[in-house]
Amino acid sequence: MFQFKKIKEEKNTKARLGEITTDHGVIETPIFMPVGTKATVKTMKVDELKDLKAQIILANTYHLFLRPGTEIIKEAGGLHRFMNWDGPILTDSGGFQVFSLSKIRKITEEGVEFRSHIDGSKKFLSPEKSMEIQHILGSDIMMCFDECAPYPSSYDYIKNSSERTSRWAKRCKDYHGDREGQALFGIVQGGMYKDLRKQSAEDLVAMDFPGYAVGGLSVGEPLSLMKEILDYTTDFLPKDKPRYLMGVGTPDYLFEAVERGIDMADCVLPTRIARNGTLFTSRGRLVIKNAKYKRDFNPPDSECSCEVCQNYSRAYIRHLFNADEILGLRLATIHNLHFLIQLMEDIRASIREDRFLEFKDDFYQKYGYNKDRED
Amino acid sequence: MFQFKKIKEEKNTKARLGEITTDHGVIETPIFMPVGTKATVKTMKVDELKDLKAQIILANTYHLFLRPGTEIIKEAGGLHRFMNWDGPILTDSGGFQVFSLSKIRKITEEGVEFRSHIDGSKKFLSPEKSMEIQHILGSDIMMCFDECAPYPSSYDYIKNSSERTSRWAKRCKDYHGDREGQALFGIVQGGMYKDLRKQSAEDLVAMDFPGYAVGGLSVGEPLSLMKEILDYTTDFLPKDKPRYLMGVGTPDYLFEAVERGIDMADCVLPTRIARNGTLFTSRGRLVIKNAKYKRDFNPPDSECSCEVCQNYSRAYIRHLFNADEILGLRLATIHNLHFLIQLMEDIRASIREDRFLEFKDDFYQKYGYNKDRED
Repeated sequence: MFQFKKIKEEKNTKARLGEITTDHGVIETPIFMPVGTKATVKTMKVDELKDLKAQIILANTYHLFLRPGTEIIKEAGGLHRFMNWDGPILTDSGGFQVFSLSKIRKITEEGVEFRSHIDGSKKFLSPEKSMEIQHILGSDIMMCFDECAPYPSSYDYIKNSSERTSRWAKRCKDYHGDREGQALFGIVQGGMYKDLRKQSAEDLVAMDFPGYAVGGLSVGEPLSLMKEILDYTTDFLPKDKPRYLMGVGTPDYLFEAVERGIDMADCVLPTRIARNGTLFTSRGRLVIKNAKYKRDFNPPDSECSCEVCQNYSRAYIRHLFNADEILGLRLATIHNLHFLIQLMEDIRASIREDRFLEFKDDFYQKYGYNKDRED
Repeated sequence: MFQFKKIKEEKNTKARLGEITTDHGVIETPIFMPVGTKATVKTMKVDELKDLKAQIILANTYHLFLRPGTEIIKEAGGLHRFMNWDGPILTDSGGFQVFSLSKIRKITEEGVEFRSHIDGSKKFLSPEKSMEIQHILGSDIMMCFDECAPYPSSYDYIKNSSERTSRWAKRCKDYHGDREGQALFGIVQGGMYKDLRKQSAEDLVAMDFPGYAVGGLSVGEPLSLMKEILDYTTDFLPKDKPRYLMGVGTPDYLFEAVERGIDMADCVLPTRIARNGTLFTSRGRLVIKNAKYKRDFNPPDSECSCEVCQNYSRAYIRHLFNADEILGLRLATIHNLHFLIQLMEDIRASIREDRFLEFKDDFYQKYGYNKDRED
């Protein structure tokens, strides 16, 4: 089953409170989804994700297609059983990685020929093939096969790519059919061109997907432009369907997305910067390897309730990073995921009480939001 | 406080059941002690060590002296607080690492001059310096500063080194004095020469340490020789003091050590081979990257009760190793530590019931003990 219940709209913004029900559990929205690229959220056991109250995780079709390969996941009984995660899973289509990771490729109307970034072997992905793989993975939410164009790209390039993405979406939907238990989302493209965004959204909405993603944003454009295009785009999406902004995972982008009516977001950023020793805190980012933390026996964030901040000091975590100890990567990852999951819980509370903008302002004031990012 | 209570001797062997009480908790012996070289048992959080019923962990004076440095651990309030482990800790003296890791050195009666293996800086360790550092670390059990000679070494080399180790032990004891809360163990050396082992043991026993380690074994000599020398050596150690065999951590060596009256052992091996993808199982070692586990959805060890074997398959763990995912290292580490901790619990039960040799035979029969290792 797949159901989206819109609980309320915030009084002062387009922010929404909702609930998605899947066969593997209920997801409160707006939600941040940790990314488990290769069937593991890096460094984390699944019970630890549960402890952090992660309600849904993401996995990457492209990576799992290449390794371990769909045959093995099929024999395991699907991705949930393979990785031992019994909560909801969203899989992307493989499109983004084919275009960003694989080096040699031929794009035709049929699909994309590429070489595996692992062993150079020739591979092919198409709308139908992506659906076939995602059916085997058995994710609760699947994505249509699309092209996420880089920024900047010319109007003609985006028009071509975006129109093909719509045609591919139709083929995905046809292949997917009435399949139960897996909801297929369409992905709105159109780059930074409003008329193309409008066209893409209208194409997809006409196909009546159970949910819509906004792709091709947060790809290097200024924040102000992202906000403008997102704001414009969400107005063309039905209010009673969930909306997913792909590839967003910093506190400021999450606030801006939710404010514009986004219900779901994902990004590798919180786990990736964690492994580089950068921690989110209520006072902004903290680079733990910095010499000033050598003798700092305070927790990473004194306002944080996570187990890392309750039990380990900055000096100790710094030592772990300097000594190349895996525990350092783990503690930073746990903290950053907790930070974003807690932030979204607080955002949901602020929507419930119609004080989203106040909450956002309070957060930015402490976090030290960089106005320069406005451009 | 430090107390060793011998609960019983096994009827058919020299194996003993005991209990060590420290300020940070009670340790049941015989015990295997996981190694937390740089103030972390690699990949493990301290609460996970508790979950595995690890009763005492080891940390390395040499590594902590170099990084983060004793000043920082002093400011943190000692090693327990620095790493957030509130159970018993044993620290070695730094001797072993100085002789095995640091490249340039000058050994005098006073101590050892060496270069840090991290940044090449000149350092100096002596009996007094090792005591000073271990006092700052605040370990429950400290070790005398010694030289662990390589195998093979000439009689003259070992005689010289072993006699100096005895003189250093005296200086360690003098420096340590009547300090409460930290028990200082002597280390018997003497290489593979029985008369030197006897002399070393007698020297140290005359100094009346609260516990004795057997060093310089499991350094490359054949198992049969290790057994012979260990058997010979333990006879010179007082029965009412705990005995610690340094650097032993495979099931067979643990059995052979316990059979000869050893109460404590440690080794990086279980965690190190885990990170290389080798898992202990009741049927012998399992190399998880092996292609034959590609489609093997059984747990690593079907007879194992650890959380890894309850939740994750060989195929999944193999995938994690092939994809360079940290979770693979973690799962293998948890499993291997559980395996040895559980083995020691089973060994204690077999001593309690005077069936140690039967248990050992049963274990070897399944584990596939390699008789070739007898030489």
